[in-house]
Amino acid sequence: MDVPSFARWGDAADAVALPDGVRELLGLREPAPPVARPALPPVRLPADVLDALAAACADVATGDAARLAHAAGRSTEDLLRLRRGEADGAPDAVLRPADHAEVAAVLRVATVHRVAVVPFGGGTSVVGGLRPVAGGFAGTVALDMGRMCGLVDIDHVSRTATLQAGLRGPRAEELLGDAGLTLGHFPQSFQFASLGGYAATRSSGQASAGNGRFDDLVLGLRAATPTGDLDLGRAPRSAAGPDLRQLLLGSEGAFGVVTELTLRVRPRPDAHSYVGWSFPSFEVGSAALRALAQDGPLPTVLRLSDETETAVGAATGAGAATGCLAIVGLEGPADDVAARAAGVERLLRAHGGTPLGGEPGAAWLDGRYRAPYLRDALLDAGALAETLETATFWSRLPGTYRAVREALVTALGAGALVLCHISHVYAAGASLYFTVVAPQADDPVDQWRTAKAAASDAIVASGATISHHHGVGTDHRPWLATEIGPVGTAMLRAVKNAVDPAGILNPGVLIP
Amino acid sequence: MDVPSFARWGDAADAVALPDGVRELLGLREPAPPVARPALPPVRLPADVLDALAAACADVATGDAARLAHAAGRSTEDLLRLRRGEADGAPDAVLRPADHAEVAAVLRVATVHRVAVVPFGGGTSVVGGLRPVAGGFAGTVALDMGRMCGLVDIDHVSRTATLQAGLRGPRAEELLGDAGLTLGHFPQSFQFASLGGYAATRSSGQASAGNGRFDDLVLGLRAATPTGDLDLGRAPRSAAGPDLRQLLLGSEGAFGVVTELTLRVRPRPDAHSYVGWSFPSFEVGSAALRALAQDGPLPTVLRLSDETETAVGAATGAGAATGCLAIVGLEGPADDVAARAAGVERLLRAHGGTPLGGEPGAAWLDGRYRAPYLRDALLDAGALAETLETATFWSRLPGTYRAVREALVTALGAGALVLCHISHVYAAGASLYFTVVAPQADDPVDQWRTAKAAASDAIVASGATISHHHGVGTDHRPWLATEIGPVGTAMLRAVKNAVDPAGILNPGVLIP
Repeated sequence: MDVPSFARWGDAADAVALPDGVRELLGLREPAPPVARPALPPVRLPADVLDALAAACADVATGDAARLAHAAGRSTEDLLRLRRGEADGAPDAVLRPADHAEVAAVLRVATVHRVAVVPFGGGTSVVGGLRPVAGGFAGTVALDMGRMCGLVDIDHVSRTATLQAGLRGPRAEELLGDAGLTLGHFPQSFQFASLGGYAATRSSGQASAGNGRFDDLVLGLRAATPTGDLDLGRAPRSAAGPDLRQLLLGSEGAFGVVTELTLRVRPRPDAHSYVGWSFPSFEVGSAALRALAQDGPLPTVLRLSDETETAVGAATGAGAATGCLAIVGLEGPADDVAARAAGVERLLRAHGGTPLGGEPGAAWLDGRYRAPYLRDALLDAGALAETLETATFWSRLPGTYRAVREALVTALGAGALVLCHISHVYAAGASLYFTVVAPQADDPVDQWRTAKAAASDAIVASGATISHHHGVGTDHRPWLATEIGPVGTAMLRAVKNAVDPAGILNPGVLIP
Repeated sequence: MDVPSFARWGDAADAVALPDGVRELLGLREPAPPVARPALPPVRLPADVLDALAAACADVATGDAARLAHAAGRSTEDLLRLRRGEADGAPDAVLRPADHAEVAAVLRVATVHRVAVVPFGGGTSVVGGLRPVAGGFAGTVALDMGRMCGLVDIDHVSRTATLQAGLRGPRAEELLGDAGLTLGHFPQSFQFASLGGYAATRSSGQASAGNGRFDDLVLGLRAATPTGDLDLGRAPRSAAGPDLRQLLLGSEGAFGVVTELTLRVRPRPDAHSYVGWSFPSFEVGSAALRALAQDGPLPTVLRLSDETETAVGAATGAGAATGCLAIVGLEGPADDVAARAAGVERLLRAHGGTPLGGEPGAAWLDGRYRAPYLRDALLDAGALAETLETATFWSRLPGTYRAVREALVTALGAGALVLCHISHVYAAGASLYFTVVAPQADDPVDQWRTAKAAASDAIVASGATISHHHGVGTDHRPWLATEIGPVGTAMLRAVKNAVDPAGILNPGVLIP
């Protein structure tokens, strides 16, 4: 299907075809309707405000292409709406600041003129993080951080690097790689998401078991707020009051615009080992992952698909396991990888695992960033496809798994495929990542919203968190209110009012 | 000297004598003046308010002994003031709540009647954390958490335990030990400090290299605030907005009273190895510690004394090293300890270390909680003795070390002993812990305040944090303002006003 880039994931050149048999598996009868030409709302901002913004930041675009490219994130709902011509989230203008001072200047002008400002990194939010509430504002601008993409400093002694927030994953790895270093942060959105976005949403990469989450990597940060700058992080850890870095991490552009990050870096690994393991059941495999997370040695990457995900993978050629497929990746110095591999193998065998060799590992590595492209192909074919995720303590995990699966199957019907894997582990718990594929109903947006609400209710009722690594955005706000309660909500509101009294920063996200 | 317990550290039975030679080393001529009988201010709270408080919490004491025992923390300034009869920080009453509901009820009554509430755990603050600003309030009460000392639950699958916040270290270890578990958190205040205090001040234990800081152990918490309860922590880690747990950790009783904590626990180690190492200089030793922190294997305990601390230790019989003494402790399963010990030895030898065997390790273990008792003996003998600490990135550490040393020596004169050790390490940086001993001037409180201010200025000017693990209290507030800036300060104030609009919670601490 000829879907323009503003309504698809990533680079058109990397689009994938639907694997054989998927149409039949899902009983898909007809492809999605053709894509409508989106009707952009007229630019609302008056000329004098645009002039004031241009005085703060020279790079201002108000053309259709720029506005459309910043009209939404990349959730399935975002894509479905764009496909049917709904681009009402498009900003009036796109500003591309050159440096921290321009960001700060834009926030001052926007405060005076009541312009909503949506910080925009890679544009890959899947929780409605780029869908601002425009009511009550003179207009909306996207603050595209793409020009702020430099390496500021490397501190080899402390193994830290200071990088601008607009840098995207591959370029950051390139800059650090020249110095023999890596961040080691590889979320599925790696090719497009920005460092600032990672920080603002508490991203978690596929190598989180070994390298930590992105919030673990953040040692210092600089942010511009409407009321002034924040420069935080004088030590890796401190007892100088609450850790305010942790208040900016996960703030989704509602408290400030992160412009610079000081991050933990590590030497580029010189050895890699990615292998597959098979477990007789999700329960047995989960216990094996738990043992690794609690007693070590901890792999760099550790994932376990449930029976359905394993079977679908096998049926579409992406795996050969029966039971449940686990991927175990180790990276580091060669002797360390060898020693850990031996320890991992001993423990996984003792927990009922059967090694499958390097082929499943290589297949996983090859396809690690491909799922969002596959989603486009599924949408083209008339399927609904989306993911959601959560995390909780190990003892609650089976209950959360069952409750969410049941909620999705009930909402979407027996024809839906509900796949799940554990993608991130901790000593005390783990995340669950669900993928849902079903034939589209007449209104697939409504179809998904109903299913997602049921799943979110199940997550919260089971005691799990509404998001392990996607964030809150607009989609998860109602459930965040339950999760943090009225006092937690009051804390977030108070911080928001203190740093952004006019409420211009990404209005409508995060805060219940 | 016969100093009553309210003006000394810990248990009188554990008091220590001054080692031989210390008087001469310091040129101490005469002992401290005799201790004055403290004049307690009259109870300010009117009878109807006391009645209302008693209705909220049955256990209320207004006797002199209870008030004196809660009159101050355990900084040298606190002790010096108590020794000279100043007990103006004494609360009007001491309340000992039985459960969370009583804590919440006390906060409601205190809000209505404008009573300042000072949450009191072990009473071991060394930064003026128990020295409330009483002006503008009807009176002050200490909320002693000592009765809330139960084990609520152990989750063996998730390796977590839920414990009441008034539990002290030894009892918590006893309760967990019955189940084969340990927290592994051993700060110098271990024998007296409470779990709630650890959380409220971001405590860091001597085994932090291997077991993490206390804030690393906190997975969930329950707190009472004047505006309602907070129940946080549905997963080890989450992307559901900013991590609000991190806002309560380090909040020093100013945002709420932590009543219950869900903590990471681990199996009790079945093997221990504590050995000493000698390094030719602090610089060489620091580089060796850095290598362990960055490349592993990481010991459980890792400390390095500078040349002066090592020499003083040797002169007073607590060590035998020339150069700089390091203590390397390993705990865990026997095979793991053996494997790590071999890796540690290889790396430390390669970095210029010489092993000293188990004797220095045993001596350190034996004396690990004794330093505060030694301080009492020094105060008795007419010496000023106090500690301060900071942390920063490895690349800044030598500059911070030099600047703080110089500031202290300049302020206290050449006769002062300024000792330092690295007590906590991270991949990106480490802490510095200074001990200062000098002959007392005519006004030792003023003498120390001047020296401490100079050291604090040097810490902040060198880019380090004003506290790595003691907290902010009242003593560090001016420097916290520089560290987090006006926007950070506004954030703290906003949260405070949101959860405690009457400002009754530990007024005067933390917030600049």
